[in-house]
Amino acid sequence: MPWYQLDDPHDPKLDELARQYNLHPLHIEDARSEDESVKVDSGNLYTFAVLKPVYLKPDPDAPTEQMPTFTTIDIFAGKDFLITVVDPVCPATTEALERARRDGDGEHPARLLYLILDTIVDRYFSAIDHFDDRIDALEDAIFDSPSPEILAQVFAIKRELIGLRRVLVNTRDACLHLQRDPNTIIDSEHQLYVRDTYDHVARLLDSVETQRDLLNNSLDIYLTSVSNRTNEVMKVLTVLGTIALPAIAISGIYGMNLKGLPFEESPHGALFVGFLTIMCTVLLLLVLRRMRWF
Amino acid sequence: MPWYQLDDPHDPKLDELARQYNLHPLHIEDARSEDESVKVDSGNLYTFAVLKPVYLKPDPDAPTEQMPTFTTIDIFAGKDFLITVVDPVCPATTEALERARRDGDGEHPARLLYLILDTIVDRYFSAIDHFDDRIDALEDAIFDSPSPEILAQVFAIKRELIGLRRVLVNTRDACLHLQRDPNTIIDSEHQLYVRDTYDHVARLLDSVETQRDLLNNSLDIYLTSVSNRTNEVMKVLTVLGTIALPAIAISGIYGMNLKGLPFEESPHGALFVGFLTIMCTVLLLLVLRRMRWF
Amino acid sequence: MPWYQLDDPHDPKLDELARQYNLHPLHIEDARSEDESVKVDSGNLYTFAVLKPVYLKPDPDAPTEQMPTFTTIDIFAGKDFLITVVDPVCPATTEALERARRDGDGEHPARLLYLILDTIVDRYFSAIDHFDDRIDALEDAIFDSPSPEILAQVFAIKRELIGLRRVLVNTRDACLHLQRDPNTIIDSEHQLYVRDTYDHVARLLDSVETQRDLLNNSLDIYLTSVSNRTNEVMKVLTVLGTIALPAIAISGIYGMNLKGLPFEESPHGALFVGFLTIMCTVLLLLVLRRMRWF
Amino acid sequence: MPWYQLDDPHDPKLDELARQYNLHPLHIEDARSEDESVKVDSGNLYTFAVLKPVYLKPDPDAPTEQMPTFTTIDIFAGKDFLITVVDPVCPATTEALERARRDGDGEHPARLLYLILDTIVDRYFSAIDHFDDRIDALEDAIFDSPSPEILAQVFAIKRELIGLRRVLVNTRDACLHLQRDPNTIIDSEHQLYVRDTYDHVARLLDSVETQRDLLNNSLDIYLTSVSNRTNEVMKVLTVLGTIALPAIAISGIYGMNLKGLPFEESPHGALFVGFLTIMCTVLLLLVLRRMRWF
Amino acid sequence: MPWYQLDDPHDPKLDELARQYNLHPLHIEDARSEDESVKVDSGNLYTFAVLKPVYLKPDPDAPTEQMPTFTTIDIFAGKDFLITVVDPVCPATTEALERARRDGDGEHPARLLYLILDTIVDRYFSAIDHFDDRIDALEDAIFDSPSPEILAQVFAIKRELIGLRRVLVNTRDACLHLQRDPNTIIDSEHQLYVRDTYDHVARLLDSVETQRDLLNNSLDIYLTSVSNRTNEVMKVLTVLGTIALPAIAISGIYGMNLKGLPFEESPHGALFVGFLTIMCTVLLLLVLRRMRWF
Ligand SMILES: [Mg+2]
Ligand SMILES: [Mg+2]
Ligand SMILES: [Mg+2]
Ligand SMILES: [Mg+2]
Ligand SMILES: [Mg+2]
Ligand SMILES: [Mg+2]
Ligand SMILES: [Mg+2]
Ligand SMILES: [Mg+2]
Ligand SMILES: [Mg+2]
Ligand SMILES: [Mg+2]
Ligand SMILES: [Mg+2]
Ligand SMILES: [Mg+2]
Ligand SMILES: [Mg+2]
Ligand SMILES: [Mg+2]
Ligand SMILES: [Mg+2]
Ligand SMILES: [Mg+2]
Ligand SMILES: [Mg+2]
Ligand SMILES: [Mg+2]
Ligand SMILES: [Mg+2]
Ligand SMILES: [Mg+2]
Ligand SMILES: [Mg+2]
Ligand SMILES: [Mg+2]
Ligand SMILES: [Mg+2]
Ligand SMILES: [Mg+2]
Ligand SMILES: [Mg+2]
Ligand SMILES: [Mg+2]
Ligand SMILES: [Mg+2]
Ligand SMILES: [Mg+2]
Ligand SMILES: [Mg+2]
Ligand SMILES: [Mg+2]
Ligand SMILES: [Mg+2]
Repeated sequence: MPWYQLDDPHDPKLDELARQYNLHPLHIEDARSEDESVKVDSGNLYTFAVLKPVYLKPDPDAPTEQMPTFTTIDIFAGKDFLITVVDPVCPATTEALERARRDGDGEHPARLLYLILDTIVDRYFSAIDHFDDRIDALEDAIFDSPSPEILAQVFAIKRELIGLRRVLVNTRDACLHLQRDPNTIIDSEHQLYVRDTYDHVARLLDSVETQRDLLNNSLDIYLTSVSNRTNEVMKVLTVLGTIALPAIAISGIYGMNLKGLPFEESPHGALFVGFLTIMCTVLLLLVLRRMRWF
Repeated sequence: MPWYQLDDPHDPKLDELARQYNLHPLHIEDARSEDESVKVDSGNLYTFAVLKPVYLKPDPDAPTEQMPTFTTIDIFAGKDFLITVVDPVCPATTEALERARRDGDGEHPARLLYLILDTIVDRYFSAIDHFDDRIDALEDAIFDSPSPEILAQVFAIKRELIGLRRVLVNTRDACLHLQRDPNTIIDSEHQLYVRDTYDHVARLLDSVETQRDLLNNSLDIYLTSVSNRTNEVMKVLTVLGTIALPAIAISGIYGMNLKGLPFEESPHGALFVGFLTIMCTVLLLLVLRRMRWF
Repeated sequence: MPWYQLDDPHDPKLDELARQYNLHPLHIEDARSEDESVKVDSGNLYTFAVLKPVYLKPDPDAPTEQMPTFTTIDIFAGKDFLITVVDPVCPATTEALERARRDGDGEHPARLLYLILDTIVDRYFSAIDHFDDRIDALEDAIFDSPSPEILAQVFAIKRELIGLRRVLVNTRDACLHLQRDPNTIIDSEHQLYVRDTYDHVARLLDSVETQRDLLNNSLDIYLTSVSNRTNEVMKVLTVLGTIALPAIAISGIYGMNLKGLPFEESPHGALFVGFLTIMCTVLLLLVLRRMRWF
Repeated sequence: MPWYQLDDPHDPKLDELARQYNLHPLHIEDARSEDESVKVDSGNLYTFAVLKPVYLKPDPDAPTEQMPTFTTIDIFAGKDFLITVVDPVCPATTEALERARRDGDGEHPARLLYLILDTIVDRYFSAIDHFDDRIDALEDAIFDSPSPEILAQVFAIKRELIGLRRVLVNTRDACLHLQRDPNTIIDSEHQLYVRDTYDHVARLLDSVETQRDLLNNSLDIYLTSVSNRTNEVMKVLTVLGTIALPAIAISGIYGMNLKGLPFEESPHGALFVGFLTIMCTVLLLLVLRRMRWF
Repeated sequence: MPWYQLDDPHDPKLDELARQYNLHPLHIEDARSEDESVKVDSGNLYTFAVLKPVYLKPDPDAPTEQMPTFTTIDIFAGKDFLITVVDPVCPATTEALERARRDGDGEHPARLLYLILDTIVDRYFSAIDHFDDRIDALEDAIFDSPSPEILAQVFAIKRELIGLRRVLVNTRDACLHLQRDPNTIIDSEHQLYVRDTYDHVARLLDSVETQRDLLNNSLDIYLTSVSNRTNEVMKVLTVLGTIALPAIAISGIYGMNLKGLPFEESPHGALFVGFLTIMCTVLLLLVLRRMRWF
């Protein structure tokens, strides 16, 4: 059974294969589109699948960290042929093709399709684990020293999860289609295997939901801590003002060039007035204490 | 096969065609209504479709930018006739009709209907790409220099996406109806094509959801940054007050016209008191530092 | 075919008709209840429908504006009789009954039921348009001069939309029931008409959802603008304090009754100290400028 | 037909009845559990129902108000027997049993079950009306004089609605089960009655949703008003500071023991400086006015 | 009937059993995976179940409290064999196996599977009750003395509930599968028992939803109380400033070394000016009172 492996969807070889195996023009259009989604489409002659392998690249919002990137792999799996159109720089794609070549068997395109799909889904677990570690670190950082930079990373991961979630939802639907569609190339033996992959994708989606909940929790924690700190700052400002107010007001009064102020002529005037000031300050602090400000 | 093309739903020619081809009065009412939704309705004699082509016009909230606008096209596609009622100023409509005339074939109204639908859906991709670019620019602007003007644009795009999403949801339902309804004019060959259009609309909806999530993210970033800046402003105010307070209070005390203050008569009184003031200020700053304010 | 028109559900005539036409006691209980929901219930002998016509009355939160109010109409539509129990002061009810009498035909209760339903649904469009205009005005007002009074109107409209949405959802379910229930009085000819009404209700619900989204957008805009203004006020306070602080602190220092201050004896002391003060102020303002506060 | 009425699920009489009528051990376990949910379970021999009657008791968060409390009633309704296990202190339970005895008929357990269910559901309307009145009062109070005490009541009602909603959702499912399950004791005549009860529960759920929306609205209004008041307080603080600043700064300058200040020696110095101070104050106030602060 | 009990999934004995009973390699892979989800998979030969027993361990965020932890139990239940792979340190697992041994019967693997499942689900009730008590305590603490530490516990419980909810949702799906799948080992007699377990899981999920709602309520209460306190602090600051402002401004004015101030030479100048200051202060306080600040 021939397996045609192309590295570029615009290769004229693809047009030739399209003529030879009656590939539908809409599928060729999909393979050549810049912005494909994960999908599976089964006709009488072959099953067409678009998958999105993932690999890690440095994250622009946190250069020491990595972020998942998606490429595309298009598969035409007929009863007696297999065509794959891939991005050759993606390590997940390379691994999937190698595993299919090693464990697969040249007579069963269904097995080859399953092996590629399963390897790609296994790779998503690494992406999720990667986020798990970063979210754990961010949660600790938000509790210990909340800062806008940490928040920028929270939002960057939320953004990445939005994209990852879409790919997983579409991959789950594709697995369902491979199990249930009567036209699909997947035979009854491999339906059990695809069901297992479906379960893995469902578990991945569970994890993504959990991670989104945790990030929202982190965001709430951050916002709460900013509110709290503003409140604390306000209190410190008020307490400081309270301590200084009697000294400022009373010293202002005794700085007036007027006659008739009490103690004005007393040799211990400063002492009396200083005592008065301290009494006022203590009184104000006791009031604030009663209001439980510190 | 005749193709009747009208530019105005109030054209009396439409009443004539209604009599000739037995068009249902409710469909004529729809075609003449000011505020139609996307829909498909299939009877025994013909399929009636209302579609919403989109084109870009300048955005009132950001005059240098463009915003999508919708017009309406009504299609009556019978087995042996086609009636289209369109808004002739919309470039997407013009393109759809031209492509149908060029690629279609006078004997297959199903193909003409598909070609019009597919062209209209292709145009939605430009609207989405347009938003993609603007959202990217807004995200950068919010991180670099958050301002109410940028926020006004975020809300303007959210508003436009609300409208775009409704049109896409209704278009997706219309595609589903064209595939599944037993009365529909779409034959089995073209069902595959309509399914492809359905996939495109589903992908567009995915993109709209992603864009809404990103805009909500941007909004959260903006609000967080406003909270943070208020907190920063409060801190600066408190730190400034703290630096000035000892000077103000102590100088006030030594400005009193009273007797008995320490150093009052000393020739280096200003030096001693200045040193005392600086000590108090440094002490307060150390306390704030300990509280990790700067 | 007799059409019995009652203005009061407690009219003993209704008990008489109940005996004559075998009306179910639960339906009589419904018709006489103070707090009915929209519903349709079809038995072997007749279809019982509760509908909620709407009309506009002055809004207590904004006396120059109007708000939708709901009344109730109960309809018993048998094969050879029609009983309607209505609130005679509601103009929408009056219009619905008049249109049914004018366009209907004494032998088809299905047509009469459809005509009443369709007129009532048409009236909902006026309620929605009314909100459209008010929401547009509120959006502009919130951008131009946000105030608690405008916000009170936003919340008042949200409140009204909650009620309108419930009525529309129940009306949509009632339309679906009239189309699908095998017992319903609606014959196959009128099912097409009821489907059209169903589409209208679906479009109304679309509009209500859009309006809710727009009101939530407005609320977010308001809250953001309050946050922004608080931030602005804080900055002005801090900038003012910053401008005044050097003058206050330095003048306080030179107001001390102490010996040994620099320039104390200089005839141009005020000039030197004034220059020093201005230098400090300018320095502080430059720091704030660097922090991009104005 | 015997009707066994027990006041305590731990009564050994229940074990005896379980042996006599073949009651399933899981149902006996349910009846004796402390924490049952509303449910219906139908076997070949009998229908087992757990219902949750409601009555009002004083609310700990607002002692002058009342809050709904739930008890449990277990019903075993066989073709020729009825067993009820109830909490005898609940007035709703007492009313339900009395109405069943009065209007029911010793030969139809289906009618007895319906009568008990319907009376319990009717009682929920009182609970909802009670909340309606309290929510109306809270809304007015929040607009007139928002306070943390009023907010505590909003949260207390939200909390009660969470519980009420769960009971209603489970009761709705139980009604559906009684209508549709082929094993249920409810005969075709009483299915119509149970459908009516189902409609009532659906309307109750509508009301609970509306009340939740209104409480969320109230919460938004409260938070908005707190934001607004904080903003107002800030403005007053800033305006006061602005009025006082020129007087403080200028008087400080003229309090310095330095030579060379303008007007120092003028006999009308106070007048000139006072005029200068007032000019500065007016200027600042004009700037704030221009910024639309008051 | 043999029951093989393994404590380690990597035991080579499992490979032997896999060969003997034709266990599917994917199930062996699942049993040996580090990160399994709850699931049930039924083939012709046996039912494979992964369950997640729970037990309490000390909570790192509140050392005096306990938090639920999950382990895994894998069950292969064939018609004539049972294989269990468990974590022997988990007390819930130990209890489940003991109860199965005691109440089960060596000839019915379906009964053994049910008994293990039911015991594991019963243990979830303790976890929920544990949260109930902690949430009650947190609610009281948030009303009485809101603090960031209490908030940290709210977020910690939210986090645990996210995990518990996922396990419960998957367990509910597993119960449904055991009831409905035609291949399942559960016979008709035990389907009733599994349905009861399903009801218990549904009730547990109800409780988790309620607890999430209550925690969100608590969070709203906390945030509202922080907003309120910030508002209060602002008011105290402004009132204090207001009390001091006239004294500071007027005493500053009379501290100027200028001629021509009223009362300058009066022997009762201090009295007059003091009276003037007190009048200004009282006036300002009356204005704030009118604005209802205290
Ligand atoms: Mg395509
Ligand atoms: Mg994509
Ligand atoms: Mg694998
Ligand atoms: Mg953590
Ligand atoms: Mg971003
Ligand atoms: Mg994980
Ligand atoms: Mg959250
Ligand atoms: Mg229409
Ligand atoms: Mg529309
Ligand atoms: Mg296309
Ligand atoms: Mg807008
Ligand atoms: Mg895109
Ligand atoms: Mg968000
Ligand atoms: Mg009723
Ligand atoms: Mg109603
Ligand atoms: Mg109409
Ligand atoms: Mg209101
Ligand atoms: Mg509209
Ligand atoms: Mg929003
Ligand atoms: Mg319960
Ligand atoms: Mg009743
Ligand atoms: Mg509470
Ligand atoms: Mg009500
Ligand atoms: Mg809301
Ligand atoms: Mg909400
Ligand atoms: Mg697996
Ligand atoms: Mg798991
Ligand atoms: Mg149990
Ligand atoms: Mg039970
Ligand atoms: Mg509980
Ligand atoms: Mg909430």
